[in-house]
Amino acid sequence: MLLRKIFNDTDSKWKPIIQEFEAVLGRDGVVRRKDELLTYECDGLTAYRQRPAVVVLPRTTEQVAAAVKICDRYNLPWVARGAGTGLSGGALPVEDCVLIVTARMKQILDVDLENQRVVVQPGVINNWVTQAVSGAGFYYAPDPSSQIICSIGGNVAENSGGVHCLKYGVTTNHVMGLKLVIPDGSIIDVGGFVPEMPGYDLTGLFVGSEGTLGIATEITLRILKTPESICVLLADFTSIEAAGSSVADIISAGIIPAGMEIMDNLSINAVEDVAKTNCYPRDAEAILLIELDGLEVEVAANKKRVAEICQKNGARNITSANDPETRLKLWKGRKAAFAAAGHISPNYFVQDGVIPRTQLARVLKEINALSERYGYRIANVFHAGDGNLHPLVLYDNSVPGAWEQVEKLGGEILRLCVEAGGSLSGEHGIGADKNCYMPYMFSEVDLETMQYVRDCFNPKGLANPGKVFPTPRTCGEAANAQKMAQFKEAELF
Amino acid sequence: MLLRKIFNDTDSKWKPIIQEFEAVLGRDGVVRRKDELLTYECDGLTAYRQRPAVVVLPRTTEQVAAAVKICDRYNLPWVARGAGTGLSGGALPVEDCVLIVTARMKQILDVDLENQRVVVQPGVINNWVTQAVSGAGFYYAPDPSSQIICSIGGNVAENSGGVHCLKYGVTTNHVMGLKLVIPDGSIIDVGGFVPEMPGYDLTGLFVGSEGTLGIATEITLRILKTPESICVLLADFTSIEAAGSSVADIISAGIIPAGMEIMDNLSINAVEDVAKTNCYPRDAEAILLIELDGLEVEVAANKKRVAEICQKNGARNITSANDPETRLKLWKGRKAAFAAAGHISPNYFVQDGVIPRTQLARVLKEINALSERYGYRIANVFHAGDGNLHPLVLYDNSVPGAWEQVEKLGGEILRLCVEAGGSLSGEHGIGADKNCYMPYMFSEVDLETMQYVRDCFNPKGLANPGKVFPTPRTCGEAANAQKMAQFKEAELF
Repeated sequence: MLLRKIFNDTDSKWKPIIQEFEAVLGRDGVVRRKDELLTYECDGLTAYRQRPAVVVLPRTTEQVAAAVKICDRYNLPWVARGAGTGLSGGALPVEDCVLIVTARMKQILDVDLENQRVVVQPGVINNWVTQAVSGAGFYYAPDPSSQIICSIGGNVAENSGGVHCLKYGVTTNHVMGLKLVIPDGSIIDVGGFVPEMPGYDLTGLFVGSEGTLGIATEITLRILKTPESICVLLADFTSIEAAGSSVADIISAGIIPAGMEIMDNLSINAVEDVAKTNCYPRDAEAILLIELDGLEVEVAANKKRVAEICQKNGARNITSANDPETRLKLWKGRKAAFAAAGHISPNYFVQDGVIPRTQLARVLKEINALSERYGYRIANVFHAGDGNLHPLVLYDNSVPGAWEQVEKLGGEILRLCVEAGGSLSGEHGIGADKNCYMPYMFSEVDLETMQYVRDCFNPKGLANPGKVFPTPRTCGEAANAQKMAQFKEAELF
Repeated sequence: MLLRKIFNDTDSKWKPIIQEFEAVLGRDGVVRRKDELLTYECDGLTAYRQRPAVVVLPRTTEQVAAAVKICDRYNLPWVARGAGTGLSGGALPVEDCVLIVTARMKQILDVDLENQRVVVQPGVINNWVTQAVSGAGFYYAPDPSSQIICSIGGNVAENSGGVHCLKYGVTTNHVMGLKLVIPDGSIIDVGGFVPEMPGYDLTGLFVGSEGTLGIATEITLRILKTPESICVLLADFTSIEAAGSSVADIISAGIIPAGMEIMDNLSINAVEDVAKTNCYPRDAEAILLIELDGLEVEVAANKKRVAEICQKNGARNITSANDPETRLKLWKGRKAAFAAAGHISPNYFVQDGVIPRTQLARVLKEINALSERYGYRIANVFHAGDGNLHPLVLYDNSVPGAWEQVEKLGGEILRLCVEAGGSLSGEHGIGADKNCYMPYMFSEVDLETMQYVRDCFNPKGLANPGKVFPTPRTCGEAANAQKMAQFKEAELF
């Protein structure tokens, strides 16, 4: 409603602004029609929606800088958006904002195989990086499930993870340098070609800052050599605890698989209903997918050890695949898990929390108890090696009050994670979804320190306001205050 | 002279301050006698000296916070110091400052093998961490040459590297969380037990900030499982270029050794004169030391491949060792290289620069040319896998003007590194030694951004003033201005 008001009453305010944007970006670089703006109302967290006042589509660093300068001059809040696949509402517009979309910044600017570096614009799709270098025997390690549609810029903003991050680390471990536009419109370079540059590690600070400190317009990525051999094992168990114990034992044995994922019975069946892999036994309480990579001899030796550990923990069957085709088939179900949840339920909500690996069995049991208490089914699909849980809460948005209940349940799951010594987010970010939970994990002075850093880059508070951690304004909002109150009051133990 | 003046004229200024420090730290926690202060005049960069006004020796986080608060109240500049082994003057006192020394903070606070975490106070010696966990099959990876005397706090401040950082990364990759005292005396917690905490990566920002943003008082480290098998190879070559090419070929083959070090003829002979390993052939132009680790089958396979690559590049002999005793013997010379330089020359200056690996041969040739031009011998010992050079310039400080020449030569080497696409520092930090070179690597707006971050934690500029990057005050100094002018004017190509 407020938006409509602006459009009717303040067109005179926007007219000169739009003209300025068009002068810099061209007429086709500025989206202003209400029907066209619909696309940009939300990201992957579809429960939250807000139409932006205007969308701009730059192609170059200079155009981004010019757009940010216009926002700065007119004191317009702005939000950066990549492919819009984020799950925590990091790219959710704020009221009356300019949305800066990097969808047209899709150039791979440089491929340097000798030094194992690729420089990309932020709109480049994650998977394209590997495609550009795989012929020469290289790949880009971070692989979120959305890798065929999500953008590197978004990955940088959210410090995205993925299946292979157990062994190779999340996005921050693969970003060597950034060209950035900071909120006053200045262009700065942080990090660079060689690792461990002197001065403050501003690259590390920017990765995961969710668009609150600036926009990355050029990203220097590290690529890795494709391993000589890869093997995927699938072990099935009659209890999720046994799968969890296998994970702990594998790590304790000093083996670091490239990836190690658990899916529970509900996920397995959802996936088999939809993706029809015919690989995942429907009667298993849990399956454990393990990818090993390295030299052929190493993979063979570890395969034997991993199989023994799984057997010792009561695995019923263990299948394995070395050839690319069968490996892909074994992974297909895992990669399709979120989509499958959408097929077996009108709506689903993906939670993202981290716990110490040693707490897996206990926390999963507690999540199960919460599922029963609230009366919502929860499918568990997760990066078990990292202790990074992704409970999928299945619900029907058309039932009045359902979303509120699910949100509350999601909050309780997070509180469980934090109480277990873990964290509010593993790889999806805090965004608009979890900002009000941050005080549960960080002290007032910790958050104040983050706010100092934010103010230093973003003194007017125009870049992605309200995201990542609460500001007095956003937490004053009734809905958020209520969410936090519920979180605090929940009696879990 | 200025210092003496202060001591004579302003004792009345210091009296109440000393009383406050003593009230917090006890009388034995405050050092004020001139002869006792001598110890603290310099760190490992002995060419720079400055006596602090007072030294304080806290034992706890609370004592550090109380000391910092006193500095804040009286507007006293302060510098943090660990074991004082740093090579860039990061812990060099500034005039009329309080030196906060962590030498008494030597407790290992927690060892959690299950989750592979160790929590230490900053004064804990690097090597003690491995000693505390090696019995259980774990180790702490970053291993600077000074690891038996340097402290973890200093490692965190300088983001220290070491031989094993090629495969396992430098200090920042092994610090999970920090308890910090920031310059207003507040105690904050950054990072934590699980990796990739939400919010800004302030842990990464602090690691390598060289004491300009605060003091770490508790450090949570990640420990790794000791590999099943370790093998060290020593290959000797008739040219340093051949050793360099072997390094490039090994990495290109997708092998990442735990460490890969080159020593040139001058270093080899210095080491054999002093450490008498009888392992390093005195007539070799270069030796390449390679450590491989992992599963036994993996190490065996890589050993074969590495040997073939070295042979193809013209290695004369390749010896190898799997048993701990012989491995230690092969490493002994490398670890003693800096000390050996001190034995064959009255003085030496260690430079620390980074170049892309692909530029090794060319840059080493240029360094050789500089050595001839200036008439100072340069021994090359370096982390070849990382492209992290450590040219040791041998000189005699008793010769008038020698240090100034060496400093100029050191600057030219750094310029070579930066021109080659590298960096001013790989692992020793910028400190007091290289702060005026930073504008050569970073634009004005890049440095301004770093200054914003510094101001945000350290608004009064009291924490380690003048270090890491130039401030108008420090670069106004004649000596530094001259250093920078020389750097800019040098004609290298």
